[in-house]
Parts: sequence; C-alpha cells; structure tokens
Amino acid sequence: MSRQMKFVAFLMAGPTCHHHAMWRHPESENRFFDPAFWETLARTLEVGKFDGLFFTDTLSFYNETIMARGGQMSLLDPVPLVAIMARATSRIGLGVTISTSPQEPYSIARLLSSLDVLSGGRIAWNIVTSANDLGAQDFGNEARPPRGERYDLAEEVLKISRAMWAGWADGALVVDKESGMFIDERKVSRTEIAGKLVGVRGMFAVPPSPQRHPVIMQAATSPGGRKFAASYAELVFTLERSLPNMQEFYADMKDRTDKAGRNPDDCAILISVDPIIGETESIAREKQAYINEMVDAHLGIALVSAHTGLDLSRYPADKRIDEIPTENGSGGSIDVILKGTEGINLTLGEAAKRFATSELCPQVVGTPQSVADQLQELFEKKGCDGFIVSPTEMPGSFETFTRSVVPILQKRGVFRKEYPGSTLRETIKA
Amino acid sequence: MSRQMKFVAFLMAGPTCHHHAMWRHPESENRFFDPAFWETLARTLEVGKFDGLFFTDTLSFYNETIMARGGQMSLLDPVPLVAIMARATSRIGLGVTISTSPQEPYSIARLLSSLDVLSGGRIAWNIVTSANDLGAQDFGNEARPPRGERYDLAEEVLKISRAMWAGWADGALVVDKESGMFIDERKVSRTEIAGKLVGVRGMFAVPPSPQRHPVIMQAATSPGGRKFAASYAELVFTLERSLPNMQEFYADMKDRTDKAGRNPDDCAILISVDPIIGETESIAREKQAYINEMVDAHLGIALVSAHTGLDLSRYPADKRIDEIPTENGSGGSIDVILKGTEGINLTLGEAAKRFATSELCPQVVGTPQSVADQLQELFEKKGCDGFIVSPTEMPGSFETFTRSVVPILQKRGVFRKEYPGSTLRETIKA
Repeated sequence: MSRQMKFVAFLMAGPTCHHHAMWRHPESENRFFDPAFWETLARTLEVGKFDGLFFTDTLSFYNETIMARGGQMSLLDPVPLVAIMARATSRIGLGVTISTSPQEPYSIARLLSSLDVLSGGRIAWNIVTSANDLGAQDFGNEARPPRGERYDLAEEVLKISRAMWAGWADGALVVDKESGMFIDERKVSRTEIAGKLVGVRGMFAVPPSPQRHPVIMQAATSPGGRKFAASYAELVFTLERSLPNMQEFYADMKDRTDKAGRNPDDCAILISVDPIIGETESIAREKQAYINEMVDAHLGIALVSAHTGLDLSRYPADKRIDEIPTENGSGGSIDVILKGTEGINLTLGEAAKRFATSELCPQVVGTPQSVADQLQELFEKKGCDGFIVSPTEMPGSFETFTRSVVPILQKRGVFRKEYPGSTLRETIKA
Repeated sequence: MSRQMKFVAFLMAGPTCHHHAMWRHPESENRFFDPAFWETLARTLEVGKFDGLFFTDTLSFYNETIMARGGQMSLLDPVPLVAIMARATSRIGLGVTISTSPQEPYSIARLLSSLDVLSGGRIAWNIVTSANDLGAQDFGNEARPPRGERYDLAEEVLKISRAMWAGWADGALVVDKESGMFIDERKVSRTEIAGKLVGVRGMFAVPPSPQRHPVIMQAATSPGGRKFAASYAELVFTLERSLPNMQEFYADMKDRTDKAGRNPDDCAILISVDPIIGETESIAREKQAYINEMVDAHLGIALVSAHTGLDLSRYPADKRIDEIPTENGSGGSIDVILKGTEGINLTLGEAAKRFATSELCPQVVGTPQSVADQLQELFEKKGCDGFIVSPTEMPGSFETFTRSVVPILQKRGVFRKEYPGSTLRETIKA
C-alpha cells in the first residue's frame, strides 16, 4: 500500500479551536457541557476513519477579554471527556494534553495507562511542558521550573513514565482463584529513578494496555521542542503557512529523528489546517469571508497580547501596525506574532483579527475536490505526513470534511478505508 | 416522610474491597479492565436506588505480598471509571477519592467540577489527606507535608476549592452569538487566597454544575479527621464493629457538627457493612464461613504489617498473638489493629486472616429479612444514618442486596422508592 495520510481532529472544550469566531457561527452548537455532543462527534470522526482526535488544554483564561469574548479556553478538564468518547467508539485514537509540570510523573503515567487500558489501547499523550504559558494566573505556591529547565523536566517525566510502563512483563497478571496468586511478583519490576528534578521508587500499579503505553504526541516549534520531539514523539504537529516552510520543518524533523537514532517513519509530521468547504469555489470563498469577518478585533488584540505578553489594548485598534513601537514581551515581540498575517499595511485591529482567525493555521478553502487536491499536494511534496484538522464551525466542519473530502482521498488511495487494527499505534504505523 | 436510610456502594478497581478473598469467590468476575462491567454495576446500583457509589484508591501496592495475593489495590485510576459510570446512569451519585497532597488545589477543583458538570451534578469528593499512607513507595522528590500538617493542607485546599466553586454568579455564561459576549466578566470573580501551604490567584475556568460543587465525603476516625469532617463533610463514613461504638461515634460527630456551626442533619453518618445474604439463615452462615475461610493467612499478615508499619512476616503464622512482643510501627501497634478481631487466643495467622476478612468492617449475615432487620436496628437506634455497602463477591453482592434487601426496606418506608431529584446533594438531603 502506498504512503497513507493521517488525520487528527483538533478539539478544545470551549468556544474556539483555532478560529476565534467558531462559536459565533450560526451552526455551531456550543454544547460544551453535553457529553452526548462529544460522543456523537467522536463517532462522526470514526466514520471518517480519522487516526485520532485530541484535546488541547488551558488551565484557565489567558486574560479577561479572551474570557469575555470567547477566545481559546478549556471550560472542562478534557480527561473525563476522553474517557467518555473512548466508550462511544472502538477504533479512533484519543489524545489528551497533560503538562509535565506540576504533577508528579507517577500520577501522570497512572492516569494515562488507565485511560489506555479502558480504551483498549487508543490513547495519545500530547506532552506540554507547562499548562500556563499564556496565563497571567498562579495556581499554587510551588516553584515551577524556569523556562530553560522545562524540557529537562519533561524528559525526566517521560523517562520515568516509560520505565514504569515497561515494568510489567507479559503474563504478570495471573488471577488464579485456586492458588490465590493474583500477580506474579517476579514479573513486575520496581522502577527506581532519582532524576535531577523528579524521581520515583516503587512499582507501577496499572497492568499494560494493548499498546502497552500511550502514543507520544507533541507540538514542536522552538529548537528545544524539536529536539525533544525528535527523541520521543510519534506524532508531531506544528503550524506553518506555506509549502516551503512545511517542507523545511518536515526535512528538519526527519533529519533530527534520524540523528536521534530513530526511524524517521516512526515520527509522523502533522500540519494544522482549517478546511472551509463549499459546493462551489465561490460558496467556499464566501463562507471563508463570512466566518473571518465575524472575528472580534478586540478579541484579536487580547489574543496577540496574551501571546506576546504585551498589553496591546493600550493602542487604538485603528493604529497602523508599523507605527507601533517594537518591544519585547515575555512571549516575544509583536513582529514575530503578526508576521504570519503579513500585516505590515494593516491596522492593529485588522492584523490582530487576521491572527485570530486561525492563529497562523492555514485555511484550506474550496470544493471538496479542491481541498483534497491541496491536502494531497502538501502531503505528496513532503510538507507533512498528514493533518491536524481544526474546525471553523462545530461540529459541522468535521461532518462536512468527513462526508465530502475523506471519500475522495480514499478513492485516490492516499487515505485508508478501514482501520488496520485496534490500537492507535497500529493505526498511525500503517 | 420519615427519616430515610442512605446507601453508598464501596468500590475499588481491583481484587479486594474490604474482604480479602473477594476476587477468589467462584462468582467474582474480576473484569476490572472492562468498562462494560463497571457500567452494568452502576446501573444495578441505580436500580437499587443507592444514593451513590464511590471508589477508594491507592496509588500503588502496599507491599509485594499484597500485590501478589490480591489484597487491597487500585489497578486503575478511578477518575475515568467514574466518568464512564456517570454516562451509564442518570441519578446515582458517584464518588471519587482524591488526595489533597500532592496535587495543586486548582487542578483538583477543576477536575471535580468537570466531572460534576458532565454527570449533571452527581459527584462526591472523598477527601483523603495522603494517597500513600500505607505505601512503602515514593513517587516524587517533592516534600510532602508531615502528618500533623495534612489536615491543615486539606483545609486550605478545600477552602480554595470552595472559593473557586463560588466564583461564578448565575447567568455568567452568556454565549450570545449576536453581540459576541461569551461570558459576562462581571459575573466571574477572581479567587485570591495565599494560604500557609498552598494558594491560588486567578479565575476558575469551569462553570457551575447543577449542584454547584461536589458533595464532600470523608472517612473519619482520628480526632483530626473527626474535627475536619465536622466542619466540612456532608457524608462521613467509618468502621465500627458494635452498636454502642457506632452510637458513640454518631453522637460525637453530630455534636461536633453542631459545635462547628452546622446543622447536624447536613452531615450524614455512614457505617461500613459487608452483607452476606442467603435464602435461609444456615445458607447465609455457610456462605460466610466459605468466603472467610478462603482468606490467605499470609495476605492477612502482610495487610496487618502494612497497617502497622511492622514486618510481621518475621513471626511464624502459628505463633500466638499474645506471645508477639508489643511494639509500635509507623501506623500503630499490632494490639490496636487486631483488637477488633478479639483475637487474644488466636495465632498470628488466624487473627490476621480474621482482620483481612473485612478490615474490621462488620459482616451482616442472614436472610434478606434478617439483614434488613439488622440494618434497620442500627439505623433506628442512631448508630448511623445509612451504610457503606461493601461486597464479598463482585458484582453478586450488590445484585443480591439490591434484589432482596432493598425491596424490604422500601416496603417498610425506611428507604426511598424513587430518587427525589437529579443531583446527589438533593438525594442525600431528602
């Protein structure tokens, strides 16, 4: 079989995924709190043979404007959602975002293994190094590792987790009522790791799942993130806006994976896209203009402020971008954040609005045929191994994509018609 | 309506609840990893109109013998189980055990609120102050609060949680597509608490559930535990073996609740029982002898060792209890642990086995009529407001109890025939 595309749905338990007007679309249901909504969505994606779905996460609100106007936010902890969606499906993978700070590695590994057991081996762990990067909030008195140490901590947590996940040999769980042997203690080993930042000394309590441990996924942008992903990630995703940029990222990640001693095929590169699909090109373009126009400029300015760590609400929305003094916030300069909007001739409000349409995630617009063509080109020209699909209306974007684009790609032989096995790792390796 | 009994099922995602031969019973299914097992059990308990079910938890194995021979252990994190069981039911309450150490209060409060939202307001939080009391394991390098400070920490965590749960006023979630107002920011307040041990400074991200925050439940034995429960717990449970002891505990807790400025009716006292039911008295007695005989003496000794912090496997199992030198381990002396077995004339193996039948949880044995009589007596003589029901076979114990004892109590008017409302708090207050 020829090389096959991968699809993973990008979800957030809130009003916005990447597009900051998503919740305002007339057909967005906004049933964040209704488990039946999430169950139906998971089944839709499974009908579409998506490799997986995953929830990104924020612990709290980036700032008050983003809260008030429905920007990116998680209104629920995704862990119970993933458990519920796993029960409503049997093949699709389910990713959960868990930060390696501030939880202890044992608890993280145990929760992930439990989810993996209960889902029959379909869990992915989207590793982030801090849940509060954009948040001006403080959730504890505990010291957090400084930015530079975060990947060191993530590495220690992952090494400890992997050691514990490998702690049970086959056949360790005996459950022999006659003899009274429940677990063969010779087949469960202690994990003793004293790291620089965290450690563990004990036996892991969760027996192995069908895929033994969750698939590791990670967003890679910074050099630190790319280095980490090259060593550990099985699914890597990023935001790039042009084919050359995607190709550069793709080649760099495959090269890094190879140099880290892994088979580059074991690290799939996914690019985020927002498909906007219409019966005709002009309907699709009009739909794109319609939803983009709906983005709130003040929400956009609040979002850029959160990303840069600068308070840009000090400037009037109609001030030209190139008239705003260059300064650096904790998260970078406004130049860097807005470069993707190519907004040099725009006002702050216009540029911020453009940024908030998708946070630099490219919109792929057209008829089903044209969207399939565009995705196939990015895939075949080695811009990526597949896509993180992000919605502009919920759940309509996924329904439309599944009904119209997926069958075309299946017919062309670049996307599976059936799941190859039962675990997520089998799915992404096929 | 006259005073009504409460019933809560005691569950553990592993081989043993209180009775350490449970998993060896011929009819125990041991399908710990099958979500369908837990869903069916939840539905059975809901047919029986139980107020709730709850999972106790252990992070890892107390020791290797308990692991090998199937003693108390959680093989899965109960959080996803509770999410799944909530979806399979619509009225029964669902309790999850979460330690106030070492997680941050914000994350705990967020997870609990998320579960409460998704279950329609049916979650109870069983507060424990450390998940590792019996474990000889070490899951992190972080300092844990010393024993004396644990209730101080629990109190701070609970105060922070309650403040956050109260942070959203009615109508804060607007979701108005036209105006773009998603949340009315004036109706969500920041929580700023700098505790001695933990703190928080930010806005809570989860909108209120139908019962606004989970029901607080707690096991109370030590004076510190009773004091804490009197101030905060809505469901208190304990292990007592005789009516006078139960009455003493009951009167003490009601008095403490009153003195803490609360209505004593708002703190329900539950006593743990293991019902063993037969068609006739002699069948029930024989069933009791059968399952008790099946307890492994070495498992019993390992369990008493874990509870006391002493290594009692140094002594031969046939050594008489009163010939073992009195010494104190980290968890207390052997005298205290074994007093409930009244085992002065027993060997170590016999006494430990007796302890491991139920960890001092009384077995209530007889025909359905007789079990109903015994429970009703404890209830009416103010030994308790209801019962934590613990199984000796799984799921048979709960099926038998639900089919045979519940209808008798309903007919007598001491137990509800229908749930009074949709939330757990409505159920336990009715």
